[in-house]
Amino acid sequence: MSIDRLQEKIFALGNPSVFGLDPLPEYIPPHIMARHMAEKGETLAAAAAAYEEFGRGLIDALCDIVPAVKPQSAFFEMLGPEGVFAMQRTMAYAKEKGLYIIGDVKRGDIGSTAAAYSAAYLGRVQIGSALLTGFDFDSVTINAYLGSDGVRPFIETCKKYDKAIFALVKTSNPSSKELQDLSVGSEKLYDIVGRLLMALGEEAIGPSGYSCVGAVVGATYPEELRLLREKLPRTFFLVPGYGAQGGAAGDVAAAFDDRGGGAIVNSSRGIICAWQKTGHEGRDYMEAARAAALAMREDLISVLPRK
Amino acid sequence: MSIDRLQEKIFALGNPSVFGLDPLPEYIPPHIMARHMAEKGETLAAAAAAYEEFGRGLIDALCDIVPAVKPQSAFFEMLGPEGVFAMQRTMAYAKEKGLYIIGDVKRGDIGSTAAAYSAAYLGRVQIGSALLTGFDFDSVTINAYLGSDGVRPFIETCKKYDKAIFALVKTSNPSSKELQDLSVGSEKLYDIVGRLLMALGEEAIGPSGYSCVGAVVGATYPEELRLLREKLPRTFFLVPGYGAQGGAAGDVAAAFDDRGGGAIVNSSRGIICAWQKTGHEGRDYMEAARAAALAMREDLISVLPRK
Repeated sequence: MSIDRLQEKIFALGNPSVFGLDPLPEYIPPHIMARHMAEKGETLAAAAAAYEEFGRGLIDALCDIVPAVKPQSAFFEMLGPEGVFAMQRTMAYAKEKGLYIIGDVKRGDIGSTAAAYSAAYLGRVQIGSALLTGFDFDSVTINAYLGSDGVRPFIETCKKYDKAIFALVKTSNPSSKELQDLSVGSEKLYDIVGRLLMALGEEAIGPSGYSCVGAVVGATYPEELRLLREKLPRTFFLVPGYGAQGGAAGDVAAAFDDRGGGAIVNSSRGIICAWQKTGHEGRDYMEAARAAALAMREDLISVLPRK
Repeated sequence: MSIDRLQEKIFALGNPSVFGLDPLPEYIPPHIMARHMAEKGETLAAAAAAYEEFGRGLIDALCDIVPAVKPQSAFFEMLGPEGVFAMQRTMAYAKEKGLYIIGDVKRGDIGSTAAAYSAAYLGRVQIGSALLTGFDFDSVTINAYLGSDGVRPFIETCKKYDKAIFALVKTSNPSSKELQDLSVGSEKLYDIVGRLLMALGEEAIGPSGYSCVGAVVGATYPEELRLLREKLPRTFFLVPGYGAQGGAAGDVAAAFDDRGGGAIVNSSRGIICAWQKTGHEGRDYMEAARAAALAMREDLISVLPRK
């Protein structure tokens, strides 16, 4: 199953990390933006072409050492449909290069609408007699505030097309406490969300012991991370918040189970903007990203339980 | 402000309803799908062209009697980037025809990512020295599970570009109770979400008395709707669940304040699929949608408080 493939790839590369492809105009090396603007003007299409070139370069630089890529849909959507096209093409290239794709779309809706999102990003769409793919990612992030009606259509698609989802449980941002940490009886809201997701995911547990229903749990709350790891042994964690957001390797250690599995840690700016710290105006963005990814791998491995 | 324009348009047309543009291949009149497939094959591009033609026809049929349109992004995204293009073009046409656009995207993220979503759908994007628009809707739906970090960037964009948001509070689906109805002290979770949104929206209240931060509250829970109306006097409600989902006019009456304002009721399939009940194979889809929209208007007016 999808989540098993992810875990195998992590073990094979000895690297439980995913690089977040979160492009903003100022994250793109200036020579790349300038070339596309010279060709296409100051347009969204120029920026989209620059995002795609930057993404392909990063994929080339990282695909043999990092198991997965997490495109942040918001930054591509910011460029309108041209940006969405750029995300689709860049991820097709990532797939070609063997990267596992976690589409960070945080979609959440109900019934036929949730089914449409799951078909868009993970499944197939029937047009006439043809079964076609919209984006064909390996997994996506979702938001479960609407309850199980909003999660089940995704699970159906995961089972049918061998995919996975990561639902928001405890996010890495400061205000995640406002709602997620509310006390419901003796529990926090995020505990209940985690438990609901675990129950829904019971029907789709792969040979590695993890469910196709994963959870997003931020690195910035290490104690919560540790407790959730204990409570949700079959839930694979996607862990944002490492690096630029303030989480250190010691903080994310608790995300892993005693086999050293069950989690993948994201870094976005720390890797894709590494060129901003080397003083070469981005001409070395691939080398800088690779060096940053290798440093992150060492950092994470140093805190991992031995398998 | 945006929300005032919506309220004015509702009063001017005497119609507090919005038609949901939720296209699925089976909702498109067969002759439209067939023509585009004959031209472009069984492709996502053919379906996208059919969605656009169908949407434009509905806009023509409804723009003088219905104040707003709510495209469901999931159904367009299902067709990949071609579908997203179709949504953008169809909404540009809706804007030309004077309809207020509520983009049903239910986005939710934090910090720079929330800012990117708000720039994409409501704001502007700077590329070089140009300020460009991605989608330029009048408002969007959002999900506030991540807390105020995820809402504030949208409010900033609303203030800057005269836009509005509708955040999920109590949704119309059966499993909305699983999380939204959890008891937190003496309140329900959705009450706390509603209160948080009201507080965040206090800084952006327009002359009509409503804030740019609206709420999604389902028609299928009339008692909850009534209580939320009392508690959130300055919050404009977007009310799904009327018609196909089971809500009746009597159920949605409680969404309105004593001026007969403060809410807009959505119907999707009831209007766009009205052709499926007339026995003309969809050749009359515009007339059928118009008749359904007029019937809905009468139904809603019959329960409205007098202003």
